[in-house]
Amino acid sequence: MSSSLKKPATDVARHFDRLVPIEHHHVNFQDGFWKSWSETVRKTTVPTQHMRLGEEGFLEVLDFDKPPAPLARPIQPSGLSMQHFFDSDFGKWIEAASYTLKNTANAELEAQIDAIVEKLEQGQMEDGYLNSWFIRREPDKRWTNLRDLHEMYSMGHLLEGAVAYYEATGKRRFLDVMIRAVDHIGATFGSEPGQLRGYDAHEEIELALVKLYRITKDPRHLKLATYFINERGQIPSYYDEEARLRGEDPADYVYKTYAYSQAHRPVREQSQVVGHAVRAMYLFSAMTDLAHENDDPTLKQACDRLFDNLTSRQLYVTGGLGPSASNEGFTREYDLPNETAYAETCAAVALGFWSHRMAQIDLDAKFTDALETVLFNGALSGISRDGEHYFYENVLESHGQHRRWKWHYCPCCPTNIARMITSLGQYFYSGKAEELAVHLYGANTAELDLGNTYLRLKQETLYPWDGDVRIQLGLTWQAEFSIRLRIPGWCRSWTISINGVPLDADGIVEKGYATIRRSWADGDEIRLSFDMPVERLYAHPAVGEDADRVALKRGPVVYCIEETDIGMEPQRLRLSASGLIEARFDQELLGGAVVLEGEAMEAQVEDWKAGLYRNSPAAFRPRRFKAIPYHLWANRDAGAMQVWLAER
Amino acid sequence: MSSSLKKPATDVARHFDRLVPIEHHHVNFQDGFWKSWSETVRKTTVPTQHMRLGEEGFLEVLDFDKPPAPLARPIQPSGLSMQHFFDSDFGKWIEAASYTLKNTANAELEAQIDAIVEKLEQGQMEDGYLNSWFIRREPDKRWTNLRDLHEMYSMGHLLEGAVAYYEATGKRRFLDVMIRAVDHIGATFGSEPGQLRGYDAHEEIELALVKLYRITKDPRHLKLATYFINERGQIPSYYDEEARLRGEDPADYVYKTYAYSQAHRPVREQSQVVGHAVRAMYLFSAMTDLAHENDDPTLKQACDRLFDNLTSRQLYVTGGLGPSASNEGFTREYDLPNETAYAETCAAVALGFWSHRMAQIDLDAKFTDALETVLFNGALSGISRDGEHYFYENVLESHGQHRRWKWHYCPCCPTNIARMITSLGQYFYSGKAEELAVHLYGANTAELDLGNTYLRLKQETLYPWDGDVRIQLGLTWQAEFSIRLRIPGWCRSWTISINGVPLDADGIVEKGYATIRRSWADGDEIRLSFDMPVERLYAHPAVGEDADRVALKRGPVVYCIEETDIGMEPQRLRLSASGLIEARFDQELLGGAVVLEGEAMEAQVEDWKAGLYRNSPAAFRPRRFKAIPYHLWANRDAGAMQVWLAER
Repeated sequence: MSSSLKKPATDVARHFDRLVPIEHHHVNFQDGFWKSWSETVRKTTVPTQHMRLGEEGFLEVLDFDKPPAPLARPIQPSGLSMQHFFDSDFGKWIEAASYTLKNTANAELEAQIDAIVEKLEQGQMEDGYLNSWFIRREPDKRWTNLRDLHEMYSMGHLLEGAVAYYEATGKRRFLDVMIRAVDHIGATFGSEPGQLRGYDAHEEIELALVKLYRITKDPRHLKLATYFINERGQIPSYYDEEARLRGEDPADYVYKTYAYSQAHRPVREQSQVVGHAVRAMYLFSAMTDLAHENDDPTLKQACDRLFDNLTSRQLYVTGGLGPSASNEGFTREYDLPNETAYAETCAAVALGFWSHRMAQIDLDAKFTDALETVLFNGALSGISRDGEHYFYENVLESHGQHRRWKWHYCPCCPTNIARMITSLGQYFYSGKAEELAVHLYGANTAELDLGNTYLRLKQETLYPWDGDVRIQLGLTWQAEFSIRLRIPGWCRSWTISINGVPLDADGIVEKGYATIRRSWADGDEIRLSFDMPVERLYAHPAVGEDADRVALKRGPVVYCIEETDIGMEPQRLRLSASGLIEARFDQELLGGAVVLEGEAMEAQVEDWKAGLYRNSPAAFRPRRFKAIPYHLWANRDAGAMQVWLAER
Repeated sequence: MSSSLKKPATDVARHFDRLVPIEHHHVNFQDGFWKSWSETVRKTTVPTQHMRLGEEGFLEVLDFDKPPAPLARPIQPSGLSMQHFFDSDFGKWIEAASYTLKNTANAELEAQIDAIVEKLEQGQMEDGYLNSWFIRREPDKRWTNLRDLHEMYSMGHLLEGAVAYYEATGKRRFLDVMIRAVDHIGATFGSEPGQLRGYDAHEEIELALVKLYRITKDPRHLKLATYFINERGQIPSYYDEEARLRGEDPADYVYKTYAYSQAHRPVREQSQVVGHAVRAMYLFSAMTDLAHENDDPTLKQACDRLFDNLTSRQLYVTGGLGPSASNEGFTREYDLPNETAYAETCAAVALGFWSHRMAQIDLDAKFTDALETVLFNGALSGISRDGEHYFYENVLESHGQHRRWKWHYCPCCPTNIARMITSLGQYFYSGKAEELAVHLYGANTAELDLGNTYLRLKQETLYPWDGDVRIQLGLTWQAEFSIRLRIPGWCRSWTISINGVPLDADGIVEKGYATIRRSWADGDEIRLSFDMPVERLYAHPAVGEDADRVALKRGPVVYCIEETDIGMEPQRLRLSASGLIEARFDQELLGGAVVLEGEAMEAQVEDWKAGLYRNSPAAFRPRRFKAIPYHLWANRDAGAMQVWLAER
């Protein structure tokens, strides 16, 4: 029934001629920024999320031998209850948990996963179908509404979880369950006679199938993913036909346009990023995977257009994306409201997934810049410093109404940020034969296999608080290969030296990566020095919300001002365009972070008599300000916050 | 069954010692601003609204002899379908139509109303209950959910319609139907044993009962309104109890807090305007009515506090109110977002209702200033210049996504603005014995009864386009009385002359009204000259959205810039704080209006290379701008619009 498998080799060995990520467990964070976060997520986030899944009834949906509990989340106008996709939440949790198991054995955690897997196996239908909602509540309605009900989305997340658990433990029970489910999907959907020509409106299964294919090498798994991508947006729409079969008028679709799920036209014809942001990012991730696996330049071209559209017209400075709550996604170009920003954590995480994939097939720092931006800003802001409180929306401005929550009505984000941080090592390096790409900087040691070269590497740095990076190489024998070092897009001035000898950087940088090819020896040391001043950023004039405002950034870290630091709403501050802004490391701030301080002006309220409006503007007086990294906001007292600061 | 009635005398005769509005049919608009609008509404708006009510199935709900049609508007999470309150929509339409009948006979219109009345009478239940939803669909559920289902709200609008129709035609069939319904409500609700201690979460019946009382003089009608006001917000909450009786947990209330319907605490203890904006305005209107009718200073004090809170912290410069779509209402003080402003037309209309009532019991121009602000701006913007397209939300900024619609899913606003404009005359003057108050300016002739003085009056003016007003008096015999002339709050410099002799204005102005007491003779002429320069308005520094922005206002009219006039999004303009702005009458603009023109700076986009963010702000170049009255926006090509303009 399932494909034959062996314990997987490293990616590099499998893709000798192509850049592939070094798997996360080969990278060990050392004391510093990411070690602190990844330890928090491993020790606090993963176990508390399992508790929440239990407390909130998510795991009860797997009690297939009992009648289903009364509905806790009502059906929305779209026909969807949040409970339709509870499976996806523990799927993502298993994935996150599995990543930690790869490095750190934990019998209790493994037992928790095994308990879930056992129930899934018990509940799986004879034909392989696996979705707890439909099996328990509406078995006759399975596969009748791909437009609204997230069936394959849920299975996709279970599949990603199964792949991660198999890779972490070598246990294949969960994987076999999911391969049976995939076999069922593959038998049901496709362009052969008797098959349904459908595809899920919430993309996810496609990228999960590629992950599966990469360990099974079963061409049917790749073919199924390819079918879903190629079928998407074809006319006549499957969703129209499916609605009519349900006795509904397709015109009554709640979201009005299939652009909501990027199914308004074939994917290769899309050039503007539209609709639900998470769906878009999952789709583009799968398209990038398939561009890679199928050597399909048409998909790469579409992804390039879409990436440029996103980053040049629709991306918050934090890496957040999808400004609107009403469609959880995109509206019009340059629409980047701050206080009502939706900018879902999941969307920023998924932009990281996509950017990372793009960088593997096209080593361009613009992709890894986007990845780094979400990692330090718009994705990381989704989790609290204590590792057990979350944001769904990542606003860029607040009057104090936004607070982190312990759990959510639709808790898709907590497990998403968890699986990103527990597998963070994979984003640091890629390799192929005779080539190592260094994408990210941060204190770590790593073990890298470049085909025929086995390499140990040690990064020493205070990054992102400081731009100096020392990379030491450990080699058993001398070897010639290339090291490609990312020059971050935010950096305007930098130096590289090797074993103390400065390198002439002219001509060695291509698409943001400096390439050094030489015969490397054990103990060789690369020193990078990225100049990291405080930068002022201004938004394109079409972004009306940011007119006459400035954002502060230092290195990859975007800053904000919180009311708790200055004793007033930052909305009343005005920065001067030329005032000195100083950076200093504040050991007291939430485990330590670089803060920015300077002089600004404060709009006075004391002399503003009764009334909202008057004929003269406010008077100003000098005032000190302090800005903190955006990702750390809302970890202390409630209060106002602002990223885009008025400047005059 | 019903109280004895006679054709009502004028308000003044009934309230000799108190200021009461001169009824609308005593005021005849002459060529100018309001004549144009009121003719459009009478000739186009009222008849097309009847067509829409038919086309959209609103009137079918009265086919009591047929089974109900399938639900066209689904039940919302709150349990409410828009169809629950269809009755309110034709109730308001009858009211608007009746006001036109008072001045202009129209047999067809009268027949349309009679047809509705006949069906209502047929459908009314034996015990007087009257609500088409519950009678036809859920008769056993009537009066089981006052928190969510708008039963009395709908009846209140029918009652207002019945009062207006009776006053217009003298026909009492509709009024008798509604008096029976009121008798039923009065028997069902109250604090006597066996009665339900309920009150409707959507206020409306209270003010309608006062209108009824004013023609019936039946103390039970006043008492019932007083009961509802006094009971509101008492602990324990009726809504909690009612939810438990339905087998629901009160904690599951969709809107979470009874502040949503101003029922979080007794009305006399409220001091911040909260919750659903229309509900709040209807409540405060009823409170003001009862402060008046019951001589209740405690209600007046509460209204004063709430009015000050609204106008000093929560009111858009346009008179719009209720910034948030999620609760159709208020959030926190100083929260006045522009592009996402909800600022429902109904709320601005209802602020007009409330302000007007406040001015009757406390002649203070701050109230009539608010009335005038909504009339020329935030309410009038809700209807198109052609009289058959509408806005529900009245945003203060757009990127072109906001367009007027022909009809709406929840069409409460069109009939609300219609009933305001068809009865507009009533807002111009109030009278009591020996006193005439002139609240508004605009070309009209009026016939006024000041108890023992009958007065004809003629206002000649181009107001609001010009600040010169000539008022001529026509008197059969000379009489001593006071004329109290409003000095608009927007005006900083003005003169008054009588028969060509300038008046020393010192000491005659109290709370914004200049009082002239003298013996007036036929042909006496008052000339008012209100200086009307272009004003720049700045918002309180706590309104973060308007930081470093300016709004332009001339007289009572707020301006905006539309893309169609300048060929670019106004969001890229910067006004200078000192640049000259000229006003001129533009005959070509939508029937003619004063426009503003001047020099500004344009943020250049041509030299902005790829990317959303860069390290230097945009460059600027000079550019002319043209601003038009806000109420006229979105009557031409789709495009961006802005009221609060960046200034530097």
